[in-house]
Amino acid sequence: MAGRFPMRSPVLSYLDTLHARYSGIKEGKVADYIPELAKASPDAFGICLATRDGHLYEVGDTRQKFTIQSISKALTYGLALEDRGEEHVLSRIGVEPSGEAFNAISLQEGTGAPYNPMINAGAIATCGQVLVKDGQTRIQRIIAYLSKFAGQKLEVDEAVYRSESETGHRNRAIGWLLRNFDIVDEDPHDILETYFQQCAISVTCADLAVMAATLANRGINPLTGERAIAQEYVDNVLGVMATCGMYDWSGEWIYRVGLPAKSGVGGGIMAVLPGQLGIGVFSPPLDKQGNSARGIRVCSEMARGLALHLFNPSAAPQPAVRHSYNGNQVVSRRRLPAAAAHIVRRFGDRIRVMELQGPLIFSTFEPVMRALLRQAAYSRHVIVSFRNVVSADEVSLRFFAAMHVQLSFAGVSLVCCHLGGLTRQMLTAGVPPEAMMETIDAALEHCEDQLLKESGEVSWHESGRITLKRCAVFGSVTEEDLAFLEAQLPTRTYAQWETIIHAGSMADELFVLTSGTVEVRFTPTGSKLPQRLDVMTAGMTFGEMAFLDGSVRSADVVAVDEVQCRVLSRELYQQLDRDRPALKIAIVDQLLRLLSSRLRQANVEISALRN
Amino acid sequence: MAGRFPMRSPVLSYLDTLHARYSGIKEGKVADYIPELAKASPDAFGICLATRDGHLYEVGDTRQKFTIQSISKALTYGLALEDRGEEHVLSRIGVEPSGEAFNAISLQEGTGAPYNPMINAGAIATCGQVLVKDGQTRIQRIIAYLSKFAGQKLEVDEAVYRSESETGHRNRAIGWLLRNFDIVDEDPHDILETYFQQCAISVTCADLAVMAATLANRGINPLTGERAIAQEYVDNVLGVMATCGMYDWSGEWIYRVGLPAKSGVGGGIMAVLPGQLGIGVFSPPLDKQGNSARGIRVCSEMARGLALHLFNPSAAPQPAVRHSYNGNQVVSRRRLPAAAAHIVRRFGDRIRVMELQGPLIFSTFEPVMRALLRQAAYSRHVIVSFRNVVSADEVSLRFFAAMHVQLSFAGVSLVCCHLGGLTRQMLTAGVPPEAMMETIDAALEHCEDQLLKESGEVSWHESGRITLKRCAVFGSVTEEDLAFLEAQLPTRTYAQWETIIHAGSMADELFVLTSGTVEVRFTPTGSKLPQRLDVMTAGMTFGEMAFLDGSVRSADVVAVDEVQCRVLSRELYQQLDRDRPALKIAIVDQLLRLLSSRLRQANVEISALRN
Repeated sequence: MAGRFPMRSPVLSYLDTLHARYSGIKEGKVADYIPELAKASPDAFGICLATRDGHLYEVGDTRQKFTIQSISKALTYGLALEDRGEEHVLSRIGVEPSGEAFNAISLQEGTGAPYNPMINAGAIATCGQVLVKDGQTRIQRIIAYLSKFAGQKLEVDEAVYRSESETGHRNRAIGWLLRNFDIVDEDPHDILETYFQQCAISVTCADLAVMAATLANRGINPLTGERAIAQEYVDNVLGVMATCGMYDWSGEWIYRVGLPAKSGVGGGIMAVLPGQLGIGVFSPPLDKQGNSARGIRVCSEMARGLALHLFNPSAAPQPAVRHSYNGNQVVSRRRLPAAAAHIVRRFGDRIRVMELQGPLIFSTFEPVMRALLRQAAYSRHVIVSFRNVVSADEVSLRFFAAMHVQLSFAGVSLVCCHLGGLTRQMLTAGVPPEAMMETIDAALEHCEDQLLKESGEVSWHESGRITLKRCAVFGSVTEEDLAFLEAQLPTRTYAQWETIIHAGSMADELFVLTSGTVEVRFTPTGSKLPQRLDVMTAGMTFGEMAFLDGSVRSADVVAVDEVQCRVLSRELYQQLDRDRPALKIAIVDQLLRLLSSRLRQANVEISALRN
Repeated sequence: MAGRFPMRSPVLSYLDTLHARYSGIKEGKVADYIPELAKASPDAFGICLATRDGHLYEVGDTRQKFTIQSISKALTYGLALEDRGEEHVLSRIGVEPSGEAFNAISLQEGTGAPYNPMINAGAIATCGQVLVKDGQTRIQRIIAYLSKFAGQKLEVDEAVYRSESETGHRNRAIGWLLRNFDIVDEDPHDILETYFQQCAISVTCADLAVMAATLANRGINPLTGERAIAQEYVDNVLGVMATCGMYDWSGEWIYRVGLPAKSGVGGGIMAVLPGQLGIGVFSPPLDKQGNSARGIRVCSEMARGLALHLFNPSAAPQPAVRHSYNGNQVVSRRRLPAAAAHIVRRFGDRIRVMELQGPLIFSTFEPVMRALLRQAAYSRHVIVSFRNVVSADEVSLRFFAAMHVQLSFAGVSLVCCHLGGLTRQMLTAGVPPEAMMETIDAALEHCEDQLLKESGEVSWHESGRITLKRCAVFGSVTEEDLAFLEAQLPTRTYAQWETIIHAGSMADELFVLTSGTVEVRFTPTGSKLPQRLDVMTAGMTFGEMAFLDGSVRSADVVAVDEVQCRVLSRELYQQLDRDRPALKIAIVDQLLRLLSSRLRQANVEISALRN
């Protein structure tokens, strides 16, 4: 029990080591093309790693402000795509790496389109694609957009902006060239001022990591839960970062480091491992390509040290099958009378349950389809549970719907359960509502009912009121003793939804159900909905476990319809020892058989769940 | 039961549709720069998808031979890296996209190094890096290397090779330029012939898919299980394919299609989704960039239709925790005497079990570390099971070792189990051997022993020989009845490892253990090693379940050390009904309690495994 002193995560210890190792290295030169940037301390140095679920690991100067500079280009590109659509944006700005420096005034032959949105020409053209909309100027929209990535309100550093604007003559030349080729449709003045302001937005190293984690997390900011960029454009932004993000060192970057990334002359680098995490590094001295010198080294080392490479295949998605078992290994919670139980034990292997897990995409769902096709030769009923599925893309759901059709043709019914939020998408994919069940248990009941029907119309419960003789616990009791019990055991009736046993109460009675159905319910702490633990019908006993070992009731028992019970009190049960030992033995023998068969079933279920 | 007619996988149906849609489209022109290539049929068209576990989905002309051409460049680059190492190869051949056509004679300023290994200049230089070794020529080594990717012996199409060699003057010029810049160290003649032969290797569309799947599968051919390329160089090959694989359309390819790929003028395209699958497409007509026109369209459509984009974040690796529960929810298989069982129930929450699953990499293991650090405040013993872990990279094991140290400092013991093939790597990572256990069960026993020790030296078993009075099943029997039993119950002794009960035999005896330990064992079909289901010690009963419900023995029971039992026969058990009903009731009552408490424990375990 280590509550007394806080433990440092080994991840932080790793980042500490990295920070210490590289803080001593004095390479590169702080950007000085404007006086405001030249003020940055060459020793400022922060590293932040943000996980896809919003946990931040920070060491060093992760909360010091600096200007975002070119890193903004990648994010504003997302806004342009959202405003204009992919084809329109591609007609103005290419996506081919140029192999040239960031400020090269080179445009594609013929069209005059900038090679890609990461060089200045492309970024200025990108600003031009952002719409003035909803009463907001371009820069207001860009600030709001980037703020969603950061998870907090960002602002322009006015001093840096003025300084950029005063000295941005080369960029003005680019702006007018773009106007000349009609890549920009208007006087470029406003677009250029927008561009200078965008580059002067203040951020911290932690902001960059969160922005990167937002891209890693399909466009949803993991801190706020808010969507920052439409999911369909996340791939595009990561694509241009992967091929053009690091100026004329991009090819080598993706080869050596393997993370889509963008750097800025303010000393920041934002790097993304798609689907996994985001990294922000801040260190102002720049190398000759204009990338943060320490930033490049830290990212390279982290990529190697933590095996974060984009192509690292040890992160291969796994087949989505979590458990797979037959309907005689795991049965529904509903207890069956002997004849029905026998059929389920004998033919239960015609029911197959597959519990899925993880994200469903083509590669995780394809092995499931293969298993289902194999299964079709042996099963009549297949239940697929989505309880542990964390997400499902449209592709996998479409294939699920196709499997449903295929299996139907072959006479195999496929039902799915625990769909949660996926229900609507399942319907859209074409799965009929009758193939969707709420829980595995409901699906098992449904399939067991089919089995019982196929095997000669055996019912899952006794109907009407039954005699004590037909109650399992009294199965070997003599006629005389039955008459005695008939006289001695009080009858109780309960209305539908009435609670028969309250959790926490003393267990001094054993209940024998002579008509109707009851449900054992348990409400886990922190949950509002009760779980159904057991269902018992006429002829069965309930409340025996606490009765036998003298503990308090562990769960509620509720009447599902009108219920009649006979009640055996502890007093009478004990008196039998002396007064009617043969009756007592007959009862207890039967209870032993019942418990023994339940324990057997529980052990089968445990081993099915274990394997 | 659909065994009667085979079902077509929805994946094949999808590929059928794709094939039908694009076979009608007649774009592009078959390569005709040499007569042999011009012979290819413009209608030949095959699509093959190979999964990471070696399942092939094929439609159309997937077994027709054609020459590999430039696709060989990507694979031979792997051989060059293996022969010379990354830094040496990088000093001769760059990795920056050139934005130029495949046959451009452009070399980097200053060094004369080709921009990348995917243009002809770079590929010829790459051939020059392959060593003549082990009595094998360069081309022999290249053929053997590519054959491992295909999973079968490949051959050079001699007619195509001669034709390439006769007309390869431009490539000869490139060869001599490379010689001039010392990128090639020798007369380029042999290197050029090697290059021409390499391009003339015959493959099929299915071969390309398997080659791609091999790259997707960390370099191991999924059909043969053989390693084709050292794992450390898989990233490099995929990296150059991603940025330079599709000639001067590479940027747009990775932006739109998002799969590292390589095309050849023979009409083939090989595309890889790292960690997931490989695609081969064959269709000879080429577009103006020299890529298979149908191939480009099919790959684009498949990437969109199956959501295969490299940056597709819906495939995000999931946190590796499969189950997590306390040591009072799931206990060891060993049954404990009442006093010990009480302690484990009461203090079992000091033991925490985390079962992990899937591939362990930084992103899947990092949330485990967070959970472990939180857990440290509540637990004294943590068990981490690797049974469902499919792979673990060095990074995750190093962090595991660091967690072990951190938790030790905090007084929490961390043990791991079910390591299988990971044991050696765990040792290398610095985890001490005493922290590794074979199974969860062994680990639970170890931790339970610690609990029992901490809580006042309670033993997990009775020692020596015990009286019937101290056997649980006889706990409420009178002195007189005990004397009766003492006289009536035969004694049996067994040597260590002797089998007491054989699975399949009739169950007409109930065993009461008066000294020693027994183990219930079950050997699952298809397994050689028996599983340990239960361990019982002096004072406990075994064999009761089959005895009670009259079924045959379901498992073996073996003496773990010298064992003494008393045996209650069915005959005597039944006679008691009449002769000594009070004794019978005392025994049966006790059996009911024992079964009831085991059923309770089983239910707790089921719900721990369910959640």
